[in-house]
Amino acid sequence: MNTILIKQVSLNGKNVDILIKDNIFKLISSKIDIKTERIIDGRNLAIIPPFYNMHSHAAMTQLRGFADDMPLFKWLNDYIWIEESKMNEEDIYIGTILAIKEMIHSGTAFFLDMYWFDRQIIRAVENMKIRANVGITFIESRGEKEIVEKIDFINNFKHTSSLINISVAPHAIYTCSKDLFIELHKVAKQNNLKFQTHLAETIQEVEDCKKAHNNLSPVEYLDSIGVLDNNTILAHCVHISEKDAEILSERGCFLIHNPCSNMKLSSGCFNTPLVKKYNLNVALGTDGASSNNNLSMIEEMKFAALLAKHHFKDPALLSAEEVFLWATKNGAKAVGINAGEIKEGMLADCLLIDLNNPLMQPNHNFISNMVYSADGSVIKTLICNGEILLNK
Amino acid sequence: MNTILIKQVSLNGKNVDILIKDNIFKLISSKIDIKTERIIDGRNLAIIPPFYNMHSHAAMTQLRGFADDMPLFKWLNDYIWIEESKMNEEDIYIGTILAIKEMIHSGTAFFLDMYWFDRQIIRAVENMKIRANVGITFIESRGEKEIVEKIDFINNFKHTSSLINISVAPHAIYTCSKDLFIELHKVAKQNNLKFQTHLAETIQEVEDCKKAHNNLSPVEYLDSIGVLDNNTILAHCVHISEKDAEILSERGCFLIHNPCSNMKLSSGCFNTPLVKKYNLNVALGTDGASSNNNLSMIEEMKFAALLAKHHFKDPALLSAEEVFLWATKNGAKAVGINAGEIKEGMLADCLLIDLNNPLMQPNHNFISNMVYSADGSVIKTLICNGEILLNK
Repeated sequence: MNTILIKQVSLNGKNVDILIKDNIFKLISSKIDIKTERIIDGRNLAIIPPFYNMHSHAAMTQLRGFADDMPLFKWLNDYIWIEESKMNEEDIYIGTILAIKEMIHSGTAFFLDMYWFDRQIIRAVENMKIRANVGITFIESRGEKEIVEKIDFINNFKHTSSLINISVAPHAIYTCSKDLFIELHKVAKQNNLKFQTHLAETIQEVEDCKKAHNNLSPVEYLDSIGVLDNNTILAHCVHISEKDAEILSERGCFLIHNPCSNMKLSSGCFNTPLVKKYNLNVALGTDGASSNNNLSMIEEMKFAALLAKHHFKDPALLSAEEVFLWATKNGAKAVGINAGEIKEGMLADCLLIDLNNPLMQPNHNFISNMVYSADGSVIKTLICNGEILLNK
Repeated sequence: MNTILIKQVSLNGKNVDILIKDNIFKLISSKIDIKTERIIDGRNLAIIPPFYNMHSHAAMTQLRGFADDMPLFKWLNDYIWIEESKMNEEDIYIGTILAIKEMIHSGTAFFLDMYWFDRQIIRAVENMKIRANVGITFIESRGEKEIVEKIDFINNFKHTSSLINISVAPHAIYTCSKDLFIELHKVAKQNNLKFQTHLAETIQEVEDCKKAHNNLSPVEYLDSIGVLDNNTILAHCVHISEKDAEILSERGCFLIHNPCSNMKLSSGCFNTPLVKKYNLNVALGTDGASSNNNLSMIEEMKFAALLAKHHFKDPALLSAEEVFLWATKNGAKAVGINAGEIKEGMLADCLLIDLNNPLMQPNHNFISNMVYSADGSVIKTLICNGEILLNK
């Protein structure tokens, strides 16, 4: 049995001992005297949940720096889509391995992915022992045969590891029809899987949707066909109205904010005041490395907070504490993983942070330092599901 | 004599040997066979200039995370100014040492500072062997005695090291009078020193200036009293008009962009389209750690580029290559240091970058990876003035 005892680590500013048994935080107490396989000296370290990257196209690390600083449609048409069409299974496997290495370096223990050659993504995740939810991704123009094959794969999916699940991922409303959306939502429901899509990323998408669907916004349109519920995860949601926010609140959907990608592609600004007003479920994602261009959730937290303050001219708008929850607890909640907090009985996912690192000094406010000052160098240890994946 | 030979390092995509003799890049060639004190294997490394942090209050690392997520005047009046007034000489020394450690970690070889207890800043810089220009900072309300003493210090300043210089730094137009500005500009000119101040950081400052000075903008006001020239370095310059840009272009001033600080305090957006239209001299700075909250120029480059693209709705607006020049060559140019490029005869300041780091892979575009993907972990070596300050 795997047992780890972390001695005298700082948890919310208090020094405690923490016992990990198998993949669970078994006991948290001021002092624990139990013989364990491994003891970690937690002095000068703080324990926090790791990051849950809620929107990624991991293998796009292959396209990091391949095309930057150009308009969206030139970027997509002349570069990204052409290059993606040349990628084979091995490219996806290697690209995903590179992404996972990078994510571990910056403290991420889980990613929700959406890309091609899903079996290669699953293979990479299995080998690296990180958590992931792999979106089985649909684009209608790729043909009926692929759709049928993918639905068949979903219906017959057997879990090989508790670390991995799949989700049903129609790519977007402009690449999948109403009928396909409805069918895939049924497939997700029948198999008790999460349902994820890109939504309301650009103004163009909103305008095109209104033209095509009787003046309905993207959120209104998806709601009108009955595919929005508390299993639905919507990447981007940059352009939403007050009415959209009401719908998203009633349905209990999760919105995934990707500030770096939205800024780099000039997509617009995530409506933080509105999501706060309606208390919507929000988590954070990096998007793919071709529009970010890294997968650091630490950097993403800082961009989210500073973008909100800048764009809405309010330095008090999104606090370090709020954006930290978006990057940790809310991500785990969105995919229904019992993790994202350091609590007895929860899955043993955590980071040990070096409080002596110059970026964490002085320690007036630990969470502020994590969000506004830290980079990957402050992470000493990453534990995912009770296993040590990084130890520097 | 200090001699270092860097063998087969990638310079602008080509492998070369580089000879450093004392503090100068002596020879750059495809192959150099000379016996040197030290040889560095440059394979799988790229050489670039280090970063020149052109606006800092280094010792404010002491206030990192002390007060965040609140309106500017609450932040200043209720927190920062009160805490600053309690700081003694030793606090400034320790805060500056911490700042320099952090800057070296993220590849910065020079900083242009503006803070109190300047002799303690100089002491810290001397001990850490980094380059710096220490602003001797004036606020009129601190009294005539301090002003006289500081001007006397400037007039009698003796260089103890080629790494350190001082500059004349009236804090801002709202803390120093017209007469003091004119007097200090004369002092700078007589001593052949740079002249730096905060300018046009907030809309409030612009409005107050117009009210106080016959409807002149901050730039027009400083120009009207004759203190703008090519030795003038202006921090922030967020709110400038077309007419201001014309003046700044004619006078050859340097503008220092501090994107993180401007975003975190909701100060507004640096006018990248205008500075590009008038081809103004721009360099990059982090500002103090209390409004950033770190001193990473790598992060600052990404924020500068993504902020410009987002704010002006143009993903092509500020390229990785442009912002990289702001962070390197332009900074050195602003203070008249013969550095910021890897060229024979220039001062031997450089970084060696680990091309095998996951954040630098794949290497489709090295500068894009440095700006959009890297963090401090990609830096293997920092050489400043021919001396190795960091080697991992």
